[in-house]
Amino acid sequence: MTKIYAYAIRKDEEPYVHEWKEAHKDVDVDFTDQLLTPETAELAKGADGVVTYQQLDYKADTIEALDKLGIHNWSIRNVGIDNIDLKKAKELGFKITNVPVYSPDAIAEHAAIQAARVLRQDKAMDEKIAKHDLRWAPTIGREVRDQTVGVIGTGHIGQVFMRIMEGFGAKVIAYDIFKNPELEKKGYYVDDLDELYAKSDVISLHVPDTPENVHMINDDSIKKMKDDVVIVNVSRGPLVDTDAVIRGLDSGKIFGFVMDTYENEVGIFNSDFSGKDFPDKRLADLIARPNVLVTPHTAFYTTHAVRNMVIKAFDNNLKLINGEQADTPVDLNKEF
Amino acid sequence: MTKIYAYAIRKDEEPYVHEWKEAHKDVDVDFTDQLLTPETAELAKGADGVVTYQQLDYKADTIEALDKLGIHNWSIRNVGIDNIDLKKAKELGFKITNVPVYSPDAIAEHAAIQAARVLRQDKAMDEKIAKHDLRWAPTIGREVRDQTVGVIGTGHIGQVFMRIMEGFGAKVIAYDIFKNPELEKKGYYVDDLDELYAKSDVISLHVPDTPENVHMINDDSIKKMKDDVVIVNVSRGPLVDTDAVIRGLDSGKIFGFVMDTYENEVGIFNSDFSGKDFPDKRLADLIARPNVLVTPHTAFYTTHAVRNMVIKAFDNNLKLINGEQADTPVDLNKEF
Repeated sequence: MTKIYAYAIRKDEEPYVHEWKEAHKDVDVDFTDQLLTPETAELAKGADGVVTYQQLDYKADTIEALDKLGIHNWSIRNVGIDNIDLKKAKELGFKITNVPVYSPDAIAEHAAIQAARVLRQDKAMDEKIAKHDLRWAPTIGREVRDQTVGVIGTGHIGQVFMRIMEGFGAKVIAYDIFKNPELEKKGYYVDDLDELYAKSDVISLHVPDTPENVHMINDDSIKKMKDDVVIVNVSRGPLVDTDAVIRGLDSGKIFGFVMDTYENEVGIFNSDFSGKDFPDKRLADLIARPNVLVTPHTAFYTTHAVRNMVIKAFDNNLKLINGEQADTPVDLNKEF
Repeated sequence: MTKIYAYAIRKDEEPYVHEWKEAHKDVDVDFTDQLLTPETAELAKGADGVVTYQQLDYKADTIEALDKLGIHNWSIRNVGIDNIDLKKAKELGFKITNVPVYSPDAIAEHAAIQAARVLRQDKAMDEKIAKHDLRWAPTIGREVRDQTVGVIGTGHIGQVFMRIMEGFGAKVIAYDIFKNPELEKKGYYVDDLDELYAKSDVISLHVPDTPENVHMINDDSIKKMKDDVVIVNVSRGPLVDTDAVIRGLDSGKIFGFVMDTYENEVGIFNSDFSGKDFPDKRLADLIARPNVLVTPHTAFYTTHAVRNMVIKAFDNNLKLINGEQADTPVDLNKEF
């Protein structure tokens, strides 16, 4: 009987592992909440493939441990493969899959909800309510429908974000170096970023952090924006010069800031510093501000996305085991 | 020169008073932040009309004070006229206008944003972040697009709410005793409330608090709902049996609750109890829960709505002064 062994299954992933198991009664599925290491590799003994997800490096010794067990079908539940020793994996004949897209809507919805909250001054209001100050003035909201929303990057996520903002009744404009023909026909695109900066009340980033895009939000670009602009970055930390945004917040130029990613997030996001010294004073200051909404790279973190990560990884792994073409293979000839 | 005097102008209203003034250079506009009382009536001396907004009663002595100044054109910036001695006003020959609709979108947007926040478990996540616990698990979100949203009441506000939810990609169903023909043609309506309760993941109320609607959300109706339902009341407090909702929250039946109105809100909402004894233990408990979002009847409170309240009141007042038909007169023959 075909066997798949899964590592680092969190509580919120378990229902989807069981769902996949139910739908594949001819496959023996077992799992642990432990990470894959040279030591825990042994747990997969007898399996035809493994399914994993971790930030911890998969070094040569881990990969060799799987190899010794005769396991060469490996499916990761997330997108990133930069923590895998791909050279070693190729050398030992591994086949690897990832899940490059789990849920564009998870991220787009988060961007929309957080932007709306900032416009509404929800955080300031919530803080008043928590201390039983139930006066509404002067904590007045701006309606989403009154805003011109500038979307930078019109891929999957950007397009969902555009649709949500239009549901609210906002005017949406967009910029992308790769123009989507459908969107172009509908007249969404402005000519250049300067025009988008000049016209937008809300600016949301949905582009990759290519070298050209690093610090695209900086003192210069902020100067070109409207007063009381809201900036939303649920995309990649390095896109934003955090110090420049802080200057904009301090001067009152920027009305509010949504950040789900942060240029210095590695080692901080997804860790628990409660009751401990916090390692980043700048971030602590941003978290405390009433017009800044920080989330620790959780925009992706929905039941829909997690289900996709689990189901797609198992689907991929079964295809690898059966010698079929997986949906989203990692090309080991290209990736290093 | 025609003169209008306005009372109780808040800081957030001032820009719109100035906007109206700019557009009506032939009218002398003056204002105070004080309420209209028998004592402050004197401030309006020489005016042809007054514009007001307050929760404080307009009693006979206040109305007589205006009468003595020869002022009988009176425009209130809000909808409610139950704090006006209408009999006295009629007797003294007053003409009164109100502003019955300021911004359906303000309320619908608030309902949508708060519902999305509850689905996302934003409050629990925000509380973790505030104390520097930046781990995402197990605070996982539900995407709006995965929900069936049941809308009770399909007037102005309900319809805007439906459009926003559809922008997110949610499936929308609706119930109303008065069916809108357009919506009926599109197939939104379910046959009865029981069907809506059985099918909805999110239920949002947009109906008036007629006697039949009082406590429509109660133990019985909650029992008919899906597990993990989210209930949204930005409409009227009495629609919800608060104790029944608390039982549903405690049992885990209800995933979360949005309340912008509360059956016992009078004397509590729009007051400041910070550092003081809070008069309602039940409400304090709801405010503190991570899956309940309380706001003190602020859904209406946006720049768009406030602008409309000011501009429409001044427009009405000028029409009264000029002997024209005001857009939204209060019928003094009908109202008491």
